[in-house]
Amino acid sequence: MKAALLRGPGELVVEDVPDPRIEEPTDAVVRVLAAGICGTDLRGYAGLPGPVTGPRCGHEFVGVVEDVGADVTLRPGTTVVAPFVFADGTCLECEHGVPSSCRAGGMFGVAGDGGQAEAVRVPFADATLVPAAVDENDERLSALLALCDVMATGRHAARMTRIAPGASVAVIGDGAVGLCSVLAARQAGAEQVLLLGRHEDRVRIGRGFGATEVVSARGAEAVEAVRAATDGAGVDVVVDCVGEAGSLTTAIGIVRDGGALSPVGGLHAGLDLMACFLRNLTVAGGLAPARTYLPGLVEDVLAGRLDPSPVFDLSVPLGDIAKGYEAMRDRTATKTLVRIR
Amino acid sequence: MKAALLRGPGELVVEDVPDPRIEEPTDAVVRVLAAGICGTDLRGYAGLPGPVTGPRCGHEFVGVVEDVGADVTLRPGTTVVAPFVFADGTCLECEHGVPSSCRAGGMFGVAGDGGQAEAVRVPFADATLVPAAVDENDERLSALLALCDVMATGRHAARMTRIAPGASVAVIGDGAVGLCSVLAARQAGAEQVLLLGRHEDRVRIGRGFGATEVVSARGAEAVEAVRAATDGAGVDVVVDCVGEAGSLTTAIGIVRDGGALSPVGGLHAGLDLMACFLRNLTVAGGLAPARTYLPGLVEDVLAGRLDPSPVFDLSVPLGDIAKGYEAMRDRTATKTLVRIR
Repeated sequence: MKAALLRGPGELVVEDVPDPRIEEPTDAVVRVLAAGICGTDLRGYAGLPGPVTGPRCGHEFVGVVEDVGADVTLRPGTTVVAPFVFADGTCLECEHGVPSSCRAGGMFGVAGDGGQAEAVRVPFADATLVPAAVDENDERLSALLALCDVMATGRHAARMTRIAPGASVAVIGDGAVGLCSVLAARQAGAEQVLLLGRHEDRVRIGRGFGATEVVSARGAEAVEAVRAATDGAGVDVVVDCVGEAGSLTTAIGIVRDGGALSPVGGLHAGLDLMACFLRNLTVAGGLAPARTYLPGLVEDVLAGRLDPSPVFDLSVPLGDIAKGYEAMRDRTATKTLVRIR
Repeated sequence: MKAALLRGPGELVVEDVPDPRIEEPTDAVVRVLAAGICGTDLRGYAGLPGPVTGPRCGHEFVGVVEDVGADVTLRPGTTVVAPFVFADGTCLECEHGVPSSCRAGGMFGVAGDGGQAEAVRVPFADATLVPAAVDENDERLSALLALCDVMATGRHAARMTRIAPGASVAVIGDGAVGLCSVLAARQAGAEQVLLLGRHEDRVRIGRGFGATEVVSARGAEAVEAVRAATDGAGVDVVVDCVGEAGSLTTAIGIVRDGGALSPVGGLHAGLDLMACFLRNLTVAGGLAPARTYLPGLVEDVLAGRLDPSPVFDLSVPLGDIAKGYEAMRDRTATKTLVRIR
């Protein structure tokens, strides 16, 4: 079968690799219908530190179960959505609702097969995959694909910060996670959702997702704008999808005392912890335990209550996947959908 | 009237100062019945950095309203409990339930009069003081005094980390805040409460407050002991009442993935933020907004459901207050109650 292979920084090829096969009784082999390209993939592609080092890559995919091990109850032919991390469903971390910390788990494309390929061996198939009652030509596949990582992360941020009806929320960063965080905040009932971003095409998607205001300024000017929009108090919740020194400083500057900050973009720089203490800020929500949210998210998409598919503004066939990476790197695309079949 | 005055490190005297009087229509003058000595006072006494710099000191007191300004509804003769911070009750921070961040507020003894005195002018009396239907000889006054800061802090930690029935909790530090955190965790329904402390007399109080286990080891040994007591997963919630590098490292080591850490002892050192992100740790609860919790806490004490008074294991008259400081400094007392009348 064909798979995308990251051979080195900027060097992404599509080559033949051995077909995946059942190795453990809990495995499934999934034929991939569509895969996503994520910011984490881009870091690997750019040679930046991160989990993605190649050669296999891709941790967002939807597909059809093709073969299963003896212990798997999922049936071949079932359309499934994969969280970006596989997990055994039985360890203490999985039991505590944190499959992202599963002791036997791993990220697709980092541990085991990547999703940017014609097929994937999925460990712990029943605990990992979530069925979706759609056929392989359903137009909602792209919405389902957005759930694997970015939309699950947005919902995680909303849940962990307990965004409630009437809340004011600021989202820092207009990448796919930021846009999905806007959508998640609105779905949780937030009344005011300020999107801090400056890419015209992206903030347009953000407005479509329900952002009530867009703040294109940065730094002190952004802090002033958000405070002005909130009677000077700051917002109840900040979702920081960047996680660098600048965004974290902005986050601390725009959250109200007693509010919450969700650094779902990672924490690549320090936080002013004494300010967090004195001002009673809650810091909550990290690497999303996507599997925990997927059943509800799939239900929402199939019921027509949720459509994050606009984050995909470019679609390429597997053979052209390098173009999809390049477009995201050059910011001419927000997020790329890779059509496998 | 007499007041304790911190003249410099280790130099605490009791001298005559002008009687407090109503200055604003929202003021009350409170005749103090009993005052507490807090760890923060001790830092000031030792010349260490912190809010307490003297000369006035003390931010924990119970007393009787003696005089009120024109806008105050509290009546003279009412017994009252003071939170350690006064607050106006009307700013956005107060409205958000964070009176500890009140824009017009301040800590007693740091801004305005201290509680370690015969009387205190209390700004924003109605928004600050909480009435307690007891007379000035009631034996529950010491329990009420414990609410002003340390018990309010313990409850804040429990609420912010959402300690729920059946939870496992570790409390780091066996000072008065740690002991009250044990009590608060048990009151919230925690099934397993491990107290990390090594002072025999203090952990004895902790056992009385419901600690199910005491861990006297430190560092890696403490981590191993707590993990062994929790099937290897770690506890749901850690309340760190120390906030130094060692305790924070231990905290990260003993909390389970997806769990919560409440650094109510402050954050005087760094936190492993990437671990917080990857392991989905929630960091919540800082400087306690005591006023928010006081009405419920007073009700609990008067209903006989709560008695934190054992944290006071030394009682001295105001004239001997220096002995109270010394005993806490020398760790021969956990916490000192200063009898004013």
